[in-house]
Amino acid sequence: MQLSGTPVSADDLARSHPADAIETLNSIGIEAATAAIATLKPEAAAAIFNHPGLDRPASLIARLAPERAAEILLRLHTDRRVDIVRHLAPSSRRTLCALLPQHVTADLNRLLNYLPHQAGGIMTTEFVSLPAETTVAAAIQHIRQVGSGKETVYAIYLIEPESGALTGVVSLRELLMADPLSLLGRIALGRKPIAIKPDAPSEDAARLISKYDLLAVPVVDDQNRIIGIVTVDDVIDTMIEANTEDLQKLGGSEALDQPYMSMSFGAMLRKRAGWLSVLFLSEMLTASAMQTYQSELEKAVVLTLFIPLIMSSGGNSGSQATSLIIRALALNEIKLSDWWRILEREIRAGIVLGAILGVIGLIRISVWQQFHIFDYGPHWQLIAATVAAALVGIVTFGSVAGAMLPFALKRLGFDPASASAPFVATLVDVTGLVIYFTIAYAILKGTLL
Amino acid sequence: MQLSGTPVSADDLARSHPADAIETLNSIGIEAATAAIATLKPEAAAAIFNHPGLDRPASLIARLAPERAAEILLRLHTDRRVDIVRHLAPSSRRTLCALLPQHVTADLNRLLNYLPHQAGGIMTTEFVSLPAETTVAAAIQHIRQVGSGKETVYAIYLIEPESGALTGVVSLRELLMADPLSLLGRIALGRKPIAIKPDAPSEDAARLISKYDLLAVPVVDDQNRIIGIVTVDDVIDTMIEANTEDLQKLGGSEALDQPYMSMSFGAMLRKRAGWLSVLFLSEMLTASAMQTYQSELEKAVVLTLFIPLIMSSGGNSGSQATSLIIRALALNEIKLSDWWRILEREIRAGIVLGAILGVIGLIRISVWQQFHIFDYGPHWQLIAATVAAALVGIVTFGSVAGAMLPFALKRLGFDPASASAPFVATLVDVTGLVIYFTIAYAILKGTLL
Repeated sequence: MQLSGTPVSADDLARSHPADAIETLNSIGIEAATAAIATLKPEAAAAIFNHPGLDRPASLIARLAPERAAEILLRLHTDRRVDIVRHLAPSSRRTLCALLPQHVTADLNRLLNYLPHQAGGIMTTEFVSLPAETTVAAAIQHIRQVGSGKETVYAIYLIEPESGALTGVVSLRELLMADPLSLLGRIALGRKPIAIKPDAPSEDAARLISKYDLLAVPVVDDQNRIIGIVTVDDVIDTMIEANTEDLQKLGGSEALDQPYMSMSFGAMLRKRAGWLSVLFLSEMLTASAMQTYQSELEKAVVLTLFIPLIMSSGGNSGSQATSLIIRALALNEIKLSDWWRILEREIRAGIVLGAILGVIGLIRISVWQQFHIFDYGPHWQLIAATVAAALVGIVTFGSVAGAMLPFALKRLGFDPASASAPFVATLVDVTGLVIYFTIAYAILKGTLL
Repeated sequence: MQLSGTPVSADDLARSHPADAIETLNSIGIEAATAAIATLKPEAAAAIFNHPGLDRPASLIARLAPERAAEILLRLHTDRRVDIVRHLAPSSRRTLCALLPQHVTADLNRLLNYLPHQAGGIMTTEFVSLPAETTVAAAIQHIRQVGSGKETVYAIYLIEPESGALTGVVSLRELLMADPLSLLGRIALGRKPIAIKPDAPSEDAARLISKYDLLAVPVVDDQNRIIGIVTVDDVIDTMIEANTEDLQKLGGSEALDQPYMSMSFGAMLRKRAGWLSVLFLSEMLTASAMQTYQSELEKAVVLTLFIPLIMSSGGNSGSQATSLIIRALALNEIKLSDWWRILEREIRAGIVLGAILGVIGLIRISVWQQFHIFDYGPHWQLIAATVAAALVGIVTFGSVAGAMLPFALKRLGFDPASASAPFVATLVDVTGLVIYFTIAYAILKGTLL
């Protein structure tokens, strides 16, 4: 890694693999990176910008001389071009688009209509399509002519010449294996091509590619005309991003959308402070709940000793259930309509898990009392019973609330992965206090309370 | 979806795409699925077993007649064969291996030495390798002859005939574009092939494929001889599994390793009860901490009102920091040696975030007091100051502890993703109580305490 500000030799950069050049560029300041890129040939610079691993590509493009930036943009794969232009400030976008050929700008504007989390937003419009009547030999000849301009040639899409409708797919491997004189339509016969709509979530493209072992999935419009393809490398990048988001959300912050270290301190604080404050405000309900039980607390201070223990057990069981259900929903292992079966399962799981913790709690209190480590007073057995019963109630409530939250979010049209462990814990904390004091009142009434 | 036990027509199964047949097989009972597979031709059954989406493949193979099972195993890609045999009971494994040809069993035993989370454990030994002196035309001819038996032909690996060392890679696309008379070595000239060692984590293979936009990464031994390749579809499956594990661990349970719904109730409980009990036992330290401060609690019951609020804020900030750092480590955005920079950054972040929550807390207590919603007593301003100061201390401690935990785990040789949100919360809870009571003692000494 280079220190920020150290000038990077253009020769070094030009000689290294784009992926390694990118690692160097990511590790130096934006000024130094721009200066280094400005020395490269447009083809070499395009190879670097074509790779999704490059940090801050839009800022880099915006800092280059407009003519140089347009030269690079023109040489990019369409999907990368869209992704970079999407992140440009409106003024830079206008300047650069004016320097690009008319048909490139038109294509760009059409693709910018799709959102980055949709299949249309990550697709490339460069692909090979041929009529089904083409012979294998002619197809290979065609690929040899146009192939170097297409992002992927590992699949050939068969289209009906009049309507442009997608009728089949032949892989490059099949092409190579086949008799040169046979027709493409013959090879693809009887197989329905797998395709996706442009407004489908990009995760669906990932799922189709994984499920059917494809190298690319075609994107078709309502008339079944192929308008682009999502390739396997885009899908890998999409998956890495989606998983980062899921994990960051489960941890209780907004998705950072940028590497932790390259993000400015202020931007990181904003992503974290929002949720932390919302959680804090909700958690204030625990203070209100405690205030309601103030007279009980004053009569039996011994009850407060177990509040952190009981509350955290509810939060922990909830966070377990939430993460299991988020993932099962994401992998399509369970459907929205399965909520009833999950509810039943989590009630059973919660009762058993709560009982296990309850028994441990009973033992702990009895041992401390019997061996005189701490004196819980004359009614220690009733207190132990209160703690054990409260644990069963709270762990059950935590498991159920944690499991149902992702369902509720999905039902309301939100991403189930927005359910965070801290959010579940907060939800469970207030109810947990109410459960604890209600059970305490029932068991200890007439003795301590 | 079919109901469990409904017989599946063999014709339906044979006609559908393997991926769709698998969905049907996954949704029916194991007996019905075995019966359905038994009716298929070995080739059709192999196409289904070749796909990683099939649930319980080892149980299915074990239930088939041994001769039939061996016929299917023989037709599988080597990586799938290893994966299935790995999960067979020793007796089934012996029976089936006795029915396979000698060279297949030898290959199988060699591959079984690698673990499933290593590159060697997910690689396939079917790939195309040729000497660098081969012409493009001869290479295409070779692929046409052997290609149908190789899992992927999208890359041709160049090897030195004497030593077997890997010297270069040519993609099928380059082969097709190139002059038929030029030599493979000429095309690959000046490019160092990207490769991986068999004992490297499988996530590293995923990272290389993503970083260098490959369709497969070659696995080489210590003498740089290619012994297999990890293909892009294996990597996608590996990534899906790894991400599921990460999310389940962050949620505070063991990785389930099975779909939520198809897992037995008892097995699920075991995966969850272990961690939940460990967390519960650790959280008992909070009860011990509270017992230490019992006399303070009795003098100032008002302090207990804010315990849940303050503790949860520490846990929330810790869980945020942990999830951000786990992900940044997994994506190689930060290295182990960066811990010092992260520590400095998280101290600053913690102080600012804690101050934000502290101000909100101050406002809350003042408003409740001034508008007579609740009476915190004559020293309410001191109590508000205690809560605000404690929040700064606890949020800072939570952020730092949450951020450093994944580093500590990685340093000790554990998976940084083992750090769970509940674990961080537990770690922070006990310390949080000590911070709270220490600050309370300092501020309230002589008045309330």
